[in-house]
Amino acid sequence: MKQYQFQLEFQVRDYECDMQGHVNNAVYLNYLEHCRHEFIKQFGLDFSELVRRGISLVVIRVEMDYKYSLRSGEKFMIGVILERVSPLRYRFIQDIYLLPEKKLVLKARITGTGVNAKGRPQLPEEISSALDKIF
Amino acid sequence: MKQYQFQLEFQVRDYECDMQGHVNNAVYLNYLEHCRHEFIKQFGLDFSELVRRGISLVVIRVEMDYKYSLRSGEKFMIGVILERVSPLRYRFIQDIYLLPEKKLVLKARITGTGVNAKGRPQLPEEISSALDKIF
Amino acid sequence: MKQYQFQLEFQVRDYECDMQGHVNNAVYLNYLEHCRHEFIKQFGLDFSELVRRGISLVVIRVEMDYKYSLRSGEKFMIGVILERVSPLRYRFIQDIYLLPEKKLVLKARITGTGVNAKGRPQLPEEISSALDKIF
Amino acid sequence: MKQYQFQLEFQVRDYECDMQGHVNNAVYLNYLEHCRHEFIKQFGLDFSELVRRGISLVVIRVEMDYKYSLRSGEKFMIGVILERVSPLRYRFIQDIYLLPEKKLVLKARITGTGVNAKGRPQLPEEISSALDKIF
Repeated sequence: MKQYQFQLEFQVRDYECDMQGHVNNAVYLNYLEHCRHEFIKQFGLDFSELVRRGISLVVIRVEMDYKYSLRSGEKFMIGVILERVSPLRYRFIQDIYLLPEKKLVLKARITGTGVNAKGRPQLPEEISSALDKIF
Repeated sequence: MKQYQFQLEFQVRDYECDMQGHVNNAVYLNYLEHCRHEFIKQFGLDFSELVRRGISLVVIRVEMDYKYSLRSGEKFMIGVILERVSPLRYRFIQDIYLLPEKKLVLKARITGTGVNAKGRPQLPEEISSALDKIF
Repeated sequence: MKQYQFQLEFQVRDYECDMQGHVNNAVYLNYLEHCRHEFIKQFGLDFSELVRRGISLVVIRVEMDYKYSLRSGEKFMIGVILERVSPLRYRFIQDIYLLPEKKLVLKARITGTGVNAKGRPQLPEEISSALDKIF
Repeated sequence: MKQYQFQLEFQVRDYECDMQGHVNNAVYLNYLEHCRHEFIKQFGLDFSELVRRGISLVVIRVEMDYKYSLRSGEKFMIGVILERVSPLRYRFIQDIYLLPEKKLVLKARITGTGVNAKGRPQLPEEISSALDKIF
């Protein structure tokens, strides 16, 4: 396992499973988003508070490799590493591991940016400096 | 626009939007899945029927580039092209366009395979030959 | 079948089904919400536009009786009747029927109200008068 | 607060909130379902295991009264009381409270039954006797 900057534990809920009996492929993006929001909250960035103030953090690229299908009741952990890609773009490396054995479930790279009121990419100073604290 | 093998129209529903007021990033994977299942149904492959018979088609890799955020009530179209990547793997090229102006919303590449009862990659003959009809 | 004020057709998508192979019980509330929002849009009430202007229409009571479990690919129709319950409350009678046979799937009664910026029940004049047009 | 037979704590995740900025009305049914499944697991009833063996526990009636709208990051608790309604029907009384102040968020009554392979109401002996342990 890599050296992650943040880790969060989850447990699969039955309503997240589809007719194949395992977690639907889209639900992993929910898990990853929740983990990112909990991560940045630690650096003073509350996603919902930012939304209320008109600041949008958006996902612009997703890459996910599915290695194992999670099933009902299974526990898992998401590890996160944040990287700056460019002045306006940052990337979350997020890996999911089945617990307790730490078997790899999914590897993701989520690239994001900020968007201003006109829909143009822009990272407000407060976000830039909060992210800098993480790097 | 590319020459797609299949196209399907959708309309954004309000419950698919998150607190930013646009479609949540995970919901696009729902749209894409529904479109793939409608596409393969035309070639005799009914996803739910396959599940009932113990045949699992699974997603093993997702790449998505988000270009525009869909909002409440907007209409859009998904175009699909299916490619064979290897004897066991196929890839859906899926692009989403806002209607009626056909503005690009999202570009996706979804790689899948079949999995047998033991969890090993395997494409049953009936699926292989159905997919061959598409290529 | 009752005489409905509005009808909307849907088709079950595979991601809406849970491990039992039929539509998860919570998803019906999504269907019903989408149908209500399409219904009131016909009377000039655009839910997302109201939200942007700070006007909240909220559900305060739900009653649903499940009669038949929808499955993958099935088509269905939702019929709606709107009733005024009190000066501040209105109720949507919503019934779901399997198509084409019109077998009853679900009967719902959804009570709603408006909420002002202070979280108190209030129906702005424009909503009251739009609803009056329906009754 | 009533004397509950089981309690489970949750925290709102941002993807569960809709464009109004609070938890979408349908998501509460997800929370309630997860809580019921965790509850019955304590009495030896694993929902997903039952599904694999062809035993379906289904919801036949839902009543929910919404008292407060949960928002991003809020913690809450669900309390459960199980009642037998008839030889084939049981009812979960489920109340949601905001934490830590225990403000009432939602009151629900969820009626369920078992369904056999032919779609007829039937409670297998093992479920009946497990439920009897709870009463």
